[in-house]
Amino acid sequence: MKNTFGYSVAVTLFGESHGEYIGAVIDGIAPGVDVDTEYIKNMLTLRRPQGTISTPRQEKDEFKIVSGVMCGKTTGTPITILIPNENVKSGDYSEMRKVARPSHADYTAECKYHGYQDTRGGGHFSGRITAALVAAGAVCKCALEKRGIFIGTHVKRCAGVSDRDFCDLQSDINTLKDKTFAVLDESAGEKMREAILKAAGEGDSVGGVLETVAVGVPAGVGEPWFDTVEGMLSHMMFSVPAVKGIEFGAGFAISDMRGAVANDPIRLEDGKVITATNNSGGINGGITNGMPIIFRTAIKPTPTIFKPQDSVNYKEMKETVLEAKGRHDPAIVHRARVVQDAACAIVLCDALAMRYGTDWLSGEQQ
Amino acid sequence: MKNTFGYSVAVTLFGESHGEYIGAVIDGIAPGVDVDTEYIKNMLTLRRPQGTISTPRQEKDEFKIVSGVMCGKTTGTPITILIPNENVKSGDYSEMRKVARPSHADYTAECKYHGYQDTRGGGHFSGRITAALVAAGAVCKCALEKRGIFIGTHVKRCAGVSDRDFCDLQSDINTLKDKTFAVLDESAGEKMREAILKAAGEGDSVGGVLETVAVGVPAGVGEPWFDTVEGMLSHMMFSVPAVKGIEFGAGFAISDMRGAVANDPIRLEDGKVITATNNSGGINGGITNGMPIIFRTAIKPTPTIFKPQDSVNYKEMKETVLEAKGRHDPAIVHRARVVQDAACAIVLCDALAMRYGTDWLSGEQQ
Amino acid sequence: MKNTFGYSVAVTLFGESHGEYIGAVIDGIAPGVDVDTEYIKNMLTLRRPQGTISTPRQEKDEFKIVSGVMCGKTTGTPITILIPNENVKSGDYSEMRKVARPSHADYTAECKYHGYQDTRGGGHFSGRITAALVAAGAVCKCALEKRGIFIGTHVKRCAGVSDRDFCDLQSDINTLKDKTFAVLDESAGEKMREAILKAAGEGDSVGGVLETVAVGVPAGVGEPWFDTVEGMLSHMMFSVPAVKGIEFGAGFAISDMRGAVANDPIRLEDGKVITATNNSGGINGGITNGMPIIFRTAIKPTPTIFKPQDSVNYKEMKETVLEAKGRHDPAIVHRARVVQDAACAIVLCDALAMRYGTDWLSGEQQ
Amino acid sequence: MKNTFGYSVAVTLFGESHGEYIGAVIDGIAPGVDVDTEYIKNMLTLRRPQGTISTPRQEKDEFKIVSGVMCGKTTGTPITILIPNENVKSGDYSEMRKVARPSHADYTAECKYHGYQDTRGGGHFSGRITAALVAAGAVCKCALEKRGIFIGTHVKRCAGVSDRDFCDLQSDINTLKDKTFAVLDESAGEKMREAILKAAGEGDSVGGVLETVAVGVPAGVGEPWFDTVEGMLSHMMFSVPAVKGIEFGAGFAISDMRGAVANDPIRLEDGKVITATNNSGGINGGITNGMPIIFRTAIKPTPTIFKPQDSVNYKEMKETVLEAKGRHDPAIVHRARVVQDAACAIVLCDALAMRYGTDWLSGEQQ
Repeated sequence: MKNTFGYSVAVTLFGESHGEYIGAVIDGIAPGVDVDTEYIKNMLTLRRPQGTISTPRQEKDEFKIVSGVMCGKTTGTPITILIPNENVKSGDYSEMRKVARPSHADYTAECKYHGYQDTRGGGHFSGRITAALVAAGAVCKCALEKRGIFIGTHVKRCAGVSDRDFCDLQSDINTLKDKTFAVLDESAGEKMREAILKAAGEGDSVGGVLETVAVGVPAGVGEPWFDTVEGMLSHMMFSVPAVKGIEFGAGFAISDMRGAVANDPIRLEDGKVITATNNSGGINGGITNGMPIIFRTAIKPTPTIFKPQDSVNYKEMKETVLEAKGRHDPAIVHRARVVQDAACAIVLCDALAMRYGTDWLSGEQQ
Repeated sequence: MKNTFGYSVAVTLFGESHGEYIGAVIDGIAPGVDVDTEYIKNMLTLRRPQGTISTPRQEKDEFKIVSGVMCGKTTGTPITILIPNENVKSGDYSEMRKVARPSHADYTAECKYHGYQDTRGGGHFSGRITAALVAAGAVCKCALEKRGIFIGTHVKRCAGVSDRDFCDLQSDINTLKDKTFAVLDESAGEKMREAILKAAGEGDSVGGVLETVAVGVPAGVGEPWFDTVEGMLSHMMFSVPAVKGIEFGAGFAISDMRGAVANDPIRLEDGKVITATNNSGGINGGITNGMPIIFRTAIKPTPTIFKPQDSVNYKEMKETVLEAKGRHDPAIVHRARVVQDAACAIVLCDALAMRYGTDWLSGEQQ
Repeated sequence: MKNTFGYSVAVTLFGESHGEYIGAVIDGIAPGVDVDTEYIKNMLTLRRPQGTISTPRQEKDEFKIVSGVMCGKTTGTPITILIPNENVKSGDYSEMRKVARPSHADYTAECKYHGYQDTRGGGHFSGRITAALVAAGAVCKCALEKRGIFIGTHVKRCAGVSDRDFCDLQSDINTLKDKTFAVLDESAGEKMREAILKAAGEGDSVGGVLETVAVGVPAGVGEPWFDTVEGMLSHMMFSVPAVKGIEFGAGFAISDMRGAVANDPIRLEDGKVITATNNSGGINGGITNGMPIIFRTAIKPTPTIFKPQDSVNYKEMKETVLEAKGRHDPAIVHRARVVQDAACAIVLCDALAMRYGTDWLSGEQQ
Repeated sequence: MKNTFGYSVAVTLFGESHGEYIGAVIDGIAPGVDVDTEYIKNMLTLRRPQGTISTPRQEKDEFKIVSGVMCGKTTGTPITILIPNENVKSGDYSEMRKVARPSHADYTAECKYHGYQDTRGGGHFSGRITAALVAAGAVCKCALEKRGIFIGTHVKRCAGVSDRDFCDLQSDINTLKDKTFAVLDESAGEKMREAILKAAGEGDSVGGVLETVAVGVPAGVGEPWFDTVEGMLSHMMFSVPAVKGIEFGAGFAISDMRGAVANDPIRLEDGKVITATNNSGGINGGITNGMPIIFRTAIKPTPTIFKPQDSVNYKEMKETVLEAKGRHDPAIVHRARVVQDAACAIVLCDALAMRYGTDWLSGEQQ
């Protein structure tokens, strides 16, 4: 389905970094759900370049909702969010891209679109498109909170520095909420930012790991084949540019454990079935078990760097050396975290609507 | 879509571990593709329990193709493969499961299916269902080879022991082909098997990491949003029981790299655009770049172990201690590798048919 | 999705008229739904050739359910129904079809499958495949009845003879239930059968119109765009071989009406909103209004006739005259009616599960 | 998928009659396809209210393409078309709709959206949304013409008056192209317009039949189950408000024919397989046969009329009489014809891209 994702709740993305608008259509959100524009604005702000560790580009991300919302509530029909691009320079594409930026999509786009792709900035591959995903996800995330489901993401690791683990989940999620650089341990965050600036000073970039948790998802959501909760979340997450890996619960570390250690002992707590550990990440056999869903993604270092790089002019098929100019992020991991929150919220809304029907999100049931 | 996966080439899985048949319907394979039953048989054999490091259960996996193939070639309409279950004991379900096995799907199935799920063995959650996935994927994998696309998987790591990295890909894939315990370095394999037996002797189990490579996939396949090649592969792979993580190219390790190291320098080789390294795993912006696709999955240790485990009787909501009996695999990572090959082949066939049309696999083009 | 239809409840069809099995996988039926094999058998019997007005072929349609049902109830996972073909003659395809039967799919299959299609009998295009659709639909139809939704179809017209209109719907549906030639007015049925025999005697065939009604569907199911109830039903119905048209409510006749006549006056009855007429066929703006859903399909005359017909040998590209041999139905409209019932039941189950969640059919709700 | 339709080429619709924008996202159009804004403008003009036989509302339908097109050519990524609403009055919804308009979607929307639906004008159910569908379809239709596929629709019947049948298809399609009231026989058109005005004068409305033909579609496109060309076209067409029936080829009339008359004799013409008649409407077994695709839809009379009508206030559950005010179309059949052209073009683009790959529309092939 290319630019549309989801069954019952589906999001469609469109736009290019230098077009008039980027945007998203979110279809299938239950009617009567409150749409909090401040909430959306806040998430968009957190995605924007911030201070010295980000590109100095100014992105305002003023958005407007042009369908599907009336009197502050969803109507039940498609919600369309438009975000105008500020930096549109109509003449920009007179000089078309010819030299592939290493580990960017320039060459693959050429192979797929035969030279017709929009090469102004990142075009449709631009990280900018994630602003639309954030706006769409913000609607979902805000609605999930009304139903007692909370999502939070922190920079688990950046430039080789680790944040502390999640601990008291609900409190940690609150802590992270409005942070522009979302770490649980501020001293770790300080070291990360220093490392980012150091890399930036050397014309280089860094990556990291994002860790997301979702609490309050009822047990019994998802499918054994093929729409496992892990499968749906991962399908979505790899659309977020720079993600190169995803792991749930104990993740790759579980592969070195013995079963007796990896298995989550099952207990009763307040009459509810829980597990003493959560190496399963809240999912067994593709289906939620009522414990927090927890996953991490590997974010690669921003591919645009100022150091000279070997490349190829694919129009003339000649080897060349590429030297990037302009303004670029030395790290995007801290900006990507609201993208991950948003993307997670969309997938959960879809899985819940498939399981419990289209009214579930609004709390109205037949 | 639950038990159906794919757009142009789609596989539907059905069956339970103790039902009459498990099976798969593969729809959308081009007409005129050779179906090599020996090839399928061989892949099923590699999935079967082997020697002392697997369960002593006998699984014959005799299969029959009951539709979609005529005179040894695909007709273009759905191919249905049936695999009879050998161990069907009709009385088995008289005593329904009540105590959830830790890190199994017992409790999540109860939440989703309200007690109606088939609890004989693993039911529809059983690893046995992967035999049907293997048979379906074998048809795809064999056909891809005719088009110059080769897939291979090795046990990259098991019980803390690592295999050597891929080196000469085509030759390595050939080496792995018929191995019952697929490692590139036999001495590493020997150590792995020893570690598995040791764990088994202690009533415990081990996990591992599988690494898959696909060579020969043309550049320009996949989508930037949402049907990235990574997204589609990962969606599929998390259906394979025990997978808790997936990473492409350098994967999680890339998150600690600087951009200057992580980026793949682009070169020309024999007039073709290649990259000097392959940290991207053959995919940029969700689209293949013509380099080998490479990914790894984290396989958790088999959850069924003989050590006593804390659990809950969810019918009576009482805590209890579970002691497993019967025959179980102390490791499944070596058996899962053909499942991963097969699953990968299905996804690639779908992506290629979406890109180049329904005849691509047969080489007939309008 | 080719041979799979539906989102939450999906059916996958497979098989060819002369293969070992035809069958269906029904995925997404709620757990705990009773599966009444007598009910399925009865519907399959009604689809079978009957007496002198059908082909003298013997089709036993013995079926077996090989997954998804335990102790007579659905487990919630895919239900697979296999129906063995009786008439499999392995040598049959030695002489491949070369001459296209007019208004059959022979030539279009050749264009699509390049000569690899199964040409024994109708292959995958055979009306025989509808037996699998009937079996799948029977599971759905039986379950819908438990939720107060009843579906019935009669031969509204055949060979130029018309049956009376539906009148007391529930009673009419009961009347039709076990009839091998489903008309409301037996004298009309008698005339239809005479006309069929007359056509048969002349080596010719006849068509007709089927009218289906579904009562008890709650108001508020379906979508304005694109998954209108009409759109989903029609998408499905055109898969039934021989259907060349579909109309809802007043259908084509409404195009000659004035608005004042066509519009259904709205009333209250026992505190419920109803309409005085039902020209809308129970659907407004793609969404059910609580009134009976009513639609008619145009069934073309069976294309296989004994009269000589102009055709083309598409292997040699030569004009020729085709003279059919063997056993053929002079009419299939009376057999197609249970197919229509079944197909309608599948679509309604899907629409209801999308609307109210996966448990709706079993009456279990979160 | 609700507001998204199609697999490889997919259209997403959004908007309400009184929101800021309505629009469409068309995804999957091959890169490098010319986008002719005059062509789009022209189709939008033909959809607009015209003269005395339409509502006197002024709809300008100025549109802008905000993504997916660069230098007049498609980039291969989503094309977004925005159409601003002129008549947005922000206070309009202060008085919410309470009385259901007969044969409108007011009551069904209430059942589905629980009172949160946008009830200003037709909301998301408005015929106005078809402007977005027309714009999207215009891109497809224009592109198909470059590949030799031409689509045309005429008002086959209106208010009881019939147009002549299609005759020389290519010439007829050209004739119809720019007509605001698309008939082949102008004298019939004159009578239709008189009948429309007569009905309008009496506060009433009329319906009609639209007939569409598509020439140049290659043989071998579509599927036997379930994505028959008829099934996909009909699924789409029932989204067009007012459509209550669809028939292909001879349609309902075929149900009264004998097989010997209904069957299309097959011939050779200039070395190509053709049929002497086209009762099949260009489709056999769900797959195109290379003959023109031909279908008709039943368009109900506009439900909004000025005559008093029995209805119900569904907020207070009281019977009442509704008297419509304002400006309304006494007929929409002549305006709907470009909608049908557009909708047909979208479905064909999707079916062709599924069959021949994503580049087919641009003529670039691997």
